[in-house]
Amino acid sequence: MSANLPKQFLPLRGLPLLFHSIFAFREAYSDIRVVLVLPENQIDYWQTLSRQHKLPPVDQVVAGGETRFHSVKNGLSSASGDLIAVHDGARPLVTSRLIRRVFETAEKHGTAIPVLPVNESLRFLDHSGSSPIERSAIRIVQTPQVFTGELLLNAYQCIYRPEFTDDATVVEYSGVHVTLTNGESDNIKITVPTDLTLAEALLGMRKSHGK
Amino acid sequence: MSANLPKQFLPLRGLPLLFHSIFAFREAYSDIRVVLVLPENQIDYWQTLSRQHKLPPVDQVVAGGETRFHSVKNGLSSASGDLIAVHDGARPLVTSRLIRRVFETAEKHGTAIPVLPVNESLRFLDHSGSSPIERSAIRIVQTPQVFTGELLLNAYQCIYRPEFTDDATVVEYSGVHVTLTNGESDNIKITVPTDLTLAEALLGMRKSHGK
Repeated sequence: MSANLPKQFLPLRGLPLLFHSIFAFREAYSDIRVVLVLPENQIDYWQTLSRQHKLPPVDQVVAGGETRFHSVKNGLSSASGDLIAVHDGARPLVTSRLIRRVFETAEKHGTAIPVLPVNESLRFLDHSGSSPIERSAIRIVQTPQVFTGELLLNAYQCIYRPEFTDDATVVEYSGVHVTLTNGESDNIKITVPTDLTLAEALLGMRKSHGK
Repeated sequence: MSANLPKQFLPLRGLPLLFHSIFAFREAYSDIRVVLVLPENQIDYWQTLSRQHKLPPVDQVVAGGETRFHSVKNGLSSASGDLIAVHDGARPLVTSRLIRRVFETAEKHGTAIPVLPVNESLRFLDHSGSSPIERSAIRIVQTPQVFTGELLLNAYQCIYRPEFTDDATVVEYSGVHVTLTNGESDNIKITVPTDLTLAEALLGMRKSHGK
């Protein structure tokens, strides 16, 4: 991102990026327990920001690890419950509607991840150059990803592997199939500065539509 | 899209979506010949819009066909030149910088298509459910796609196949490898109404950055 501030703290509608998804989870389930995982050297700054903006406190703040896998594993040491959701704070536009849908699917099937079809042509890089991929069989994976506490805590007992790009891959490695549900196109991941512009615009549109 | 107006005519910064990419191509190469392919029943409306907005005329307007393949094939019947670019009018944010990069790559290699890496986890749907894909080897394909006139006209002599999702797949089917070059994350495809909101926001950002 352009600023020196880590992206999870960048202001979106005047509030830190991270706050938006915490708010959506509490809107979905008022009694939810929120464990926030942050790099150790950012925890003090988050506490300061929270006081400045008078944000309601999260239930626990936990220091992250070397990779996404290690960070989630650290977070899980403070997590419990019949169902546990793992969400990427860089997706601030998650709605309480999507959160509820994923939880409800996981309640039925034990696992649920939100996915979306791909609107663009895709290619696969190989030794001879590249070749087209049939995109109708491809899905983009979003978060939150929700699992029964038992499944998720058990899956994260394994040793880290580089192919663990999300929680679904960890849970599958433990031998369990994951259930797909519909994601939302608004639930974008903030990666480059233009994504923050998009997020502002999308939030503006929600407001003008009274959502 | 939400409006009844076909998306290529929707207003972006007050001008029809289609106009923005025509402008970018002319900015890249002032002597470029522009052939516009439109569904037959939209051609009159485009002419009316062009007069209303006093848009500079394109060199030729051609009626499209049943699929993207047939539309491009119809357009090619009026196209000539050492290099021919095929662009999707639903990508109004294409820059003259990107257009020049793709043309320059095609000048060297005979073919060039702009691609981008994927920032999100991907899954492949199969008979048993779904499985993760290693995203580092996947690229999203954009337009404009540029080829030597000879290669492209020859490739489009073939019979239509459903796997022809873009021009690269047609050219490859004729036995020629395509060269990849870097796309631009701004070069979005307008598919859903929120994409138009994003396009407005991105253009606003360009303006404020003096681009």
